[in-house]
Amino acid sequence: MKKKYLLAPGPTPVPERALLAMAAPMIHHRTPQFSAIFREAADLLKYVFQTQQDVLILAASGTGAMEGSIVNLYSPGDEVIVVNGGKFGERWGKISEAYGLKVHWITVEWGKAVDPAVIKKALDENPNVKGVLVQASETSTTAAHPIKELAALTKDRNCLLIVDGITAVGVFDLPMDEWGIDVLVSGSQKAFMLPPGLAFAALSEKAWKFQETAKCPKFYFDFKKERKNLKDNTTAYTPAVSLITGLREALMQIKEEGLENVFKRHDRLARATKAAAAALDLKLLAPESPSNAATGVFVPEGVDGGKLVKYLRDEMGVTLAGGQDHLKGKILRIAHLGYVDTFDILTSIAAIEIAFNKFGHKVPYGKGVGAAQEILAEGYK
Amino acid sequence: MKKKYLLAPGPTPVPERALLAMAAPMIHHRTPQFSAIFREAADLLKYVFQTQQDVLILAASGTGAMEGSIVNLYSPGDEVIVVNGGKFGERWGKISEAYGLKVHWITVEWGKAVDPAVIKKALDENPNVKGVLVQASETSTTAAHPIKELAALTKDRNCLLIVDGITAVGVFDLPMDEWGIDVLVSGSQKAFMLPPGLAFAALSEKAWKFQETAKCPKFYFDFKKERKNLKDNTTAYTPAVSLITGLREALMQIKEEGLENVFKRHDRLARATKAAAAALDLKLLAPESPSNAATGVFVPEGVDGGKLVKYLRDEMGVTLAGGQDHLKGKILRIAHLGYVDTFDILTSIAAIEIAFNKFGHKVPYGKGVGAAQEILAEGYK
Repeated sequence: MKKKYLLAPGPTPVPERALLAMAAPMIHHRTPQFSAIFREAADLLKYVFQTQQDVLILAASGTGAMEGSIVNLYSPGDEVIVVNGGKFGERWGKISEAYGLKVHWITVEWGKAVDPAVIKKALDENPNVKGVLVQASETSTTAAHPIKELAALTKDRNCLLIVDGITAVGVFDLPMDEWGIDVLVSGSQKAFMLPPGLAFAALSEKAWKFQETAKCPKFYFDFKKERKNLKDNTTAYTPAVSLITGLREALMQIKEEGLENVFKRHDRLARATKAAAAALDLKLLAPESPSNAATGVFVPEGVDGGKLVKYLRDEMGVTLAGGQDHLKGKILRIAHLGYVDTFDILTSIAAIEIAFNKFGHKVPYGKGVGAAQEILAEGYK
Repeated sequence: MKKKYLLAPGPTPVPERALLAMAAPMIHHRTPQFSAIFREAADLLKYVFQTQQDVLILAASGTGAMEGSIVNLYSPGDEVIVVNGGKFGERWGKISEAYGLKVHWITVEWGKAVDPAVIKKALDENPNVKGVLVQASETSTTAAHPIKELAALTKDRNCLLIVDGITAVGVFDLPMDEWGIDVLVSGSQKAFMLPPGLAFAALSEKAWKFQETAKCPKFYFDFKKERKNLKDNTTAYTPAVSLITGLREALMQIKEEGLENVFKRHDRLARATKAAAAALDLKLLAPESPSNAATGVFVPEGVDGGKLVKYLRDEMGVTLAGGQDHLKGKILRIAHLGYVDTFDILTSIAAIEIAFNKFGHKVPYGKGVGAAQEILAEGYK
């Protein structure tokens, strides 16, 4: 017997009530029955996105919503600034270049957040720049970029702030309307606690203005068409019926917990993990500006991170994430996002302690676990 | 109590075993466990597509695979012939125009199949045409186009035959490699008996040659990148894990029944429905070249088709499809595709008989049902 524990930064565990909702017999998508489910999900999405704007629901991975954010707002030749501080920052630039935009790359060391002063300088020096593309949470490095500060820079310019919130929305506070984020995208398999297959995008009024003149070609990811269909409680093309049925259920669970409490829970899990890392002398990957979506730690010297992740998964049933690209084999990422609570975090830390000892890196059992418990106890009356 | 019966041409009913497979706890997509599921599904897809080529699996509706078929094979300014004999034929043209292709529209009356001689003439007159875009089964009109004959026309030209098989693959015989179809696309919520959210595309060697020089912009629907990832048992972007887990299960069910038997079943269901239509004096929408995906019949004079569909759905629990665009309120479409058998068809016909009588169009009870039974009895030893 080996029970499975999923603690990767997406896909994340799906609550039982959402799994069961998705296992219901199929219904047709052009019916009042489905429209009611769709409307409820669309309204609850606005709550989680903290916006009065429509949140579009696309049948795609999160990358589809990223592509849509570019092709619906820009024309070939338009200039944008891309914050490249990890694998997903790089993706913003690759999509932009695929559609003929001119990219000003701002490279940030993996694990670091971008300095708003650098963006301000780039904006001042390049007055034609029409967009700043950034991650709220860069999943590959577990760092968070300063979105509020960046929004203040783009607010009064002819420039949009386009934010990949794929591992940020529903994880930490990111009030779209209040801060002046122009585009916010996310995906179902993260804090939304669902299987992958749905992408979301919300646009500010300023962004919808840009949409009117954008000339990049598009068809499947046509935001204007989707907004029109959304008002009729449907999508332009056949919606992913079962995932949207699960979405309503998962969003209801978020609403019941309350967004504030959801943020507090993620924060507590992240702090507990960092306390455990400190107790176990593990160096953080993003110590200065960590995202509450996941905590990245460097694997101790002498331990092969790739083998460690495989051992944890295949021998212990605990799926964590390793590193990508040049961090491959060097880090562990312990996720906090979604349907994750006290004992999931304790499980991951206990498993790491056991695995370290098995790999010859001796640590006292319970040291990391105990440090995490100190903080996790806050969650109980 | 009102039980529900889904007989629309997509989404179609999902077999219990696939529903249960999709309700399993989430697993991470970059693991040997998921790769094994993915590989099995990808191999079984080749069986159903009747091809030796890879079948790409995309997280999207079928329209996404249609868009991919254009942006991966053509450049702005390229000329294509579009067979526009219904809502989905029109979509081929709209996507092509969105990406700057020059479209030669061949308009076909709704319910009719295209005449191959018309396509031959158009190809002869326009030697620069690099593609013929057509539906194997035009869902909006229940007509089938002559794919084998069209493939013979494109085979020896510098021109691809691109076939929307969304309601055709797994419904009737469409041997991709044998006939020389260059691109064949489909979607999960049709004969694949799954919820919507997955699209499929297979390309001939000739099509992959076109891919090398195609200049339309693309990122999310990048077929070359997907083919490379498929060989590593994965997808370029996060795959729709639960749907692919269900896909393997549904494809195993198709394999167990045997593709030949699947085709025979759909043919029997279609013939039975047509026999019932004849017994009830209902005029067929596509009498000359009907698709076995669904049978379209004109609603009798004096009966409001829109109200009829609503009555069947809301009062009787039987979801059929009405007409789209100018056929709205004028037709009924009774689907045969997917997880549909004898008693589903008898249910739909019995329900129509009851609804007709309720709507004042008097028909003898059991007349259509009996005519269908005569044919459906063939399915039993």
